[in-house]
Amino acid sequence: MGQLSYLLYKNLYIIKIEKMLEKYIKYENKTRWSMRAVDIIQKKRDNIELTSEEMSFLLGEYLQNRVPDYQMSSFLMAVYFNGMTKDELKVFTELMMNSGEVIKFDGIEKFLIDKHSTGGVGDKTTIALAGLFAAFNIGTAKLSGRGLGHTGGTIDKFEAIPGFVFPETRDELVKMVNKVGTGIMGYSDTIVPLDKKLYSLRDVTATVSSIPLIASSIMSKKLAVYADGIILDVKVGSGAFMKNLKTAEELAKTMIDIGDSFDRKVVTLLTDMDQPLGYAVGNANEIIEAIETLKGRGPKDFTELVETIVATALQIKGDVKSLEEGKEKVAEVISNGAAIQHLKDFIEAAGGNPKLVDDYTLLPKFKSEYEFKAKKSGWISKIEAEEIGKAAMVLGAGRATKDDIIDHSVGVLLTKKVGDYVEAGEVLAFVQHNDKNLESSIRFLEGAYTIVDEKVEKNKVILEILSNIGL
Amino acid sequence: MGQLSYLLYKNLYIIKIEKMLEKYIKYENKTRWSMRAVDIIQKKRDNIELTSEEMSFLLGEYLQNRVPDYQMSSFLMAVYFNGMTKDELKVFTELMMNSGEVIKFDGIEKFLIDKHSTGGVGDKTTIALAGLFAAFNIGTAKLSGRGLGHTGGTIDKFEAIPGFVFPETRDELVKMVNKVGTGIMGYSDTIVPLDKKLYSLRDVTATVSSIPLIASSIMSKKLAVYADGIILDVKVGSGAFMKNLKTAEELAKTMIDIGDSFDRKVVTLLTDMDQPLGYAVGNANEIIEAIETLKGRGPKDFTELVETIVATALQIKGDVKSLEEGKEKVAEVISNGAAIQHLKDFIEAAGGNPKLVDDYTLLPKFKSEYEFKAKKSGWISKIEAEEIGKAAMVLGAGRATKDDIIDHSVGVLLTKKVGDYVEAGEVLAFVQHNDKNLESSIRFLEGAYTIVDEKVEKNKVILEILSNIGL
Repeated sequence: MGQLSYLLYKNLYIIKIEKMLEKYIKYENKTRWSMRAVDIIQKKRDNIELTSEEMSFLLGEYLQNRVPDYQMSSFLMAVYFNGMTKDELKVFTELMMNSGEVIKFDGIEKFLIDKHSTGGVGDKTTIALAGLFAAFNIGTAKLSGRGLGHTGGTIDKFEAIPGFVFPETRDELVKMVNKVGTGIMGYSDTIVPLDKKLYSLRDVTATVSSIPLIASSIMSKKLAVYADGIILDVKVGSGAFMKNLKTAEELAKTMIDIGDSFDRKVVTLLTDMDQPLGYAVGNANEIIEAIETLKGRGPKDFTELVETIVATALQIKGDVKSLEEGKEKVAEVISNGAAIQHLKDFIEAAGGNPKLVDDYTLLPKFKSEYEFKAKKSGWISKIEAEEIGKAAMVLGAGRATKDDIIDHSVGVLLTKKVGDYVEAGEVLAFVQHNDKNLESSIRFLEGAYTIVDEKVEKNKVILEILSNIGL
Repeated sequence: MGQLSYLLYKNLYIIKIEKMLEKYIKYENKTRWSMRAVDIIQKKRDNIELTSEEMSFLLGEYLQNRVPDYQMSSFLMAVYFNGMTKDELKVFTELMMNSGEVIKFDGIEKFLIDKHSTGGVGDKTTIALAGLFAAFNIGTAKLSGRGLGHTGGTIDKFEAIPGFVFPETRDELVKMVNKVGTGIMGYSDTIVPLDKKLYSLRDVTATVSSIPLIASSIMSKKLAVYADGIILDVKVGSGAFMKNLKTAEELAKTMIDIGDSFDRKVVTLLTDMDQPLGYAVGNANEIIEAIETLKGRGPKDFTELVETIVATALQIKGDVKSLEEGKEKVAEVISNGAAIQHLKDFIEAAGGNPKLVDDYTLLPKFKSEYEFKAKKSGWISKIEAEEIGKAAMVLGAGRATKDDIIDHSVGVLLTKKVGDYVEAGEVLAFVQHNDKNLESSIRFLEGAYTIVDEKVEKNKVILEILSNIGL
């Protein structure tokens, strides 16, 4: 195995592959002295394909602080304009992935699905999936983030459950996946450190919104932590990073291309984020909504989303022949109580009280509820997800800055969705608060709604499915 | 005059206008806290016109090291792709110009022409103009650079004359212009310091070859030192920065646009640099060729170039009605000896021995001459100017790095130009050397020539004239 070093960490094999460094050593001996970062930037500027040696040189030297930020930022801007070829993207993603630890979960017997969302408002999918995937013996072993800004984080949402603790070692994670199907840990700095370094630079140089850079950033992290299948929920709309279907499609196709390069099954769902997902936006209230969904009483849009995701996973696994067949199976485990039982098992295994599934008073409770009412009658044509997210955030449900502390009890509970009719004076949303920033929250809500006189179509939640498995 | 501060320096008024700082103070009070460099980069990236306040903020903060290089380099790359609007260019150039001293030569009675070349091989134009402009009572008061790489510098060439010294103060410069017409000083760090800072960054981030950045860099320096008319010799061809006529035209038009914005008369000559200018490439040999030209025995291409430049200057000044009329007047001062007499006066005023005009042994002399011969018979279709420039440079005629010391005696003397026929074994060029790097020089010469079997047209030296005075 040459330069590769394998580390045994408890009963998990953590393969720390120093491929980047290995490649670096190769080019250092051969060509280092004939390479200059400025020439590589110029090639990209002139839309000439870079060799893998040039990519290795640039990223390797940058990671080691020998190529300065001012060269990398002009390179990134050139990538913004000229994009990357398929081969460049593969090499770029591989170098990103190999800039840190690459984790393979030996010891896990289950078929592993990693479902990733590009971030939305009211996205409690992972909570519902904890019950649903387990019902089909599908495992999830993933690293998850905390929320920042108007979108919440999965880790934060689970922490609304009193007593809930996440595995702290990979050993515990594997045990949990084997026992109840789902194991989630916080992100580690040792995974794709180059992504962190590049993202900080992109953030201040207007090079964030580049499709190949976004795609390689997401995929390098997905590839660094092994899963048999990758399901990517690409949110589309005013509340999402991708504002329109065209760019979302482009991102989805680029990520599928990268998946192809690494022989990984990738399904992308393009889903609506022109309004929040479901009705609940917060933490405890999202737990409740996820539970209700597994009891068959969930919002239509959210129910359809999780059904589709699980059906997709069953297709990747090879258990069903069509999405329709998969969805029927999902409906079955919801109606027969299997899904909710698996969620209970998961909560119990994580240290929470499984009884909360039937007794929501075991969850943290807000003090007061403000009724946000419609000022005029008509059809709701818009509920800006980002504004709703901010309305919940300022109450304490999310973080404006990294150091803010989450209040799990508060949030916003919508009563209507786009396409619904509302009477003047009727409640549009309940603001569940603890006397903090109520007015500011109401101001965000006021900015979120558009009510019109003509009938409005309801939004579809699944806009499109793209994959490399023929879906 | 508010924030402006005027400094009296000897008998010259040096107006040090802190306009940039003044503008900076304005936006600081009004809008500083609402501006972020990243938003300005993003606007440029998205091809939205920047306001002058945004430009002032970005450049002002950069000049004061409060916007870091990594933001400026991504901005410059976005400019590379999206260019600048006319208004942006005006503001950008003005901010550059006002980043340092702005010099107006009070005390000079003559009509001032600043002729600037974008840099070529064998370009001894300024030497010939010293005699010609003076013959028409046109003054030149300019700052000039030293050579680096394959192109020589005017200052270096004049220094081939033993005893020759440049004015060291502006007082001396003005006296010299009033006495003999031409005053040249080395560039000062106090002129357009922002250009220096930006150029260093562009050099390592592949953002040098951007038309608006090149145009504003040149024009900010021309505008910072007053002249009544600006003549820009834009070299085009393999030995020049502008490789083809199309980009050279674009550069010329952009510089004329900037001239318009500042109500300045600008004439651009697009001239051939697919081969060296004239026959002599070096320092002493270029002095000789310039003198020969003023004696009416100059190379055809070089003679035509200087005649056209001076005719253009006469048009700007309003002394002639057409270029043809101007050229006739130039031919007159060459044939009646006025031009050569004025060059003598100039050399004498600068401390040199005017007799060298008739006795070239007073110039530094190389030790040996190597005859570089044609390997085959045929028509010369190419003499790569850059290779000839390097062949002279390695002998000591130019600098590979800033610290190299010039040997004024050495150089390359061509015998043939593109379109000439040569017999196998006939001399193509004399390598005038002092036993240093002869072989390396010959290798460059070998790479410079292409000889073909079919007859080849001679190159035109003046490819095109563009101006804002109707030429």
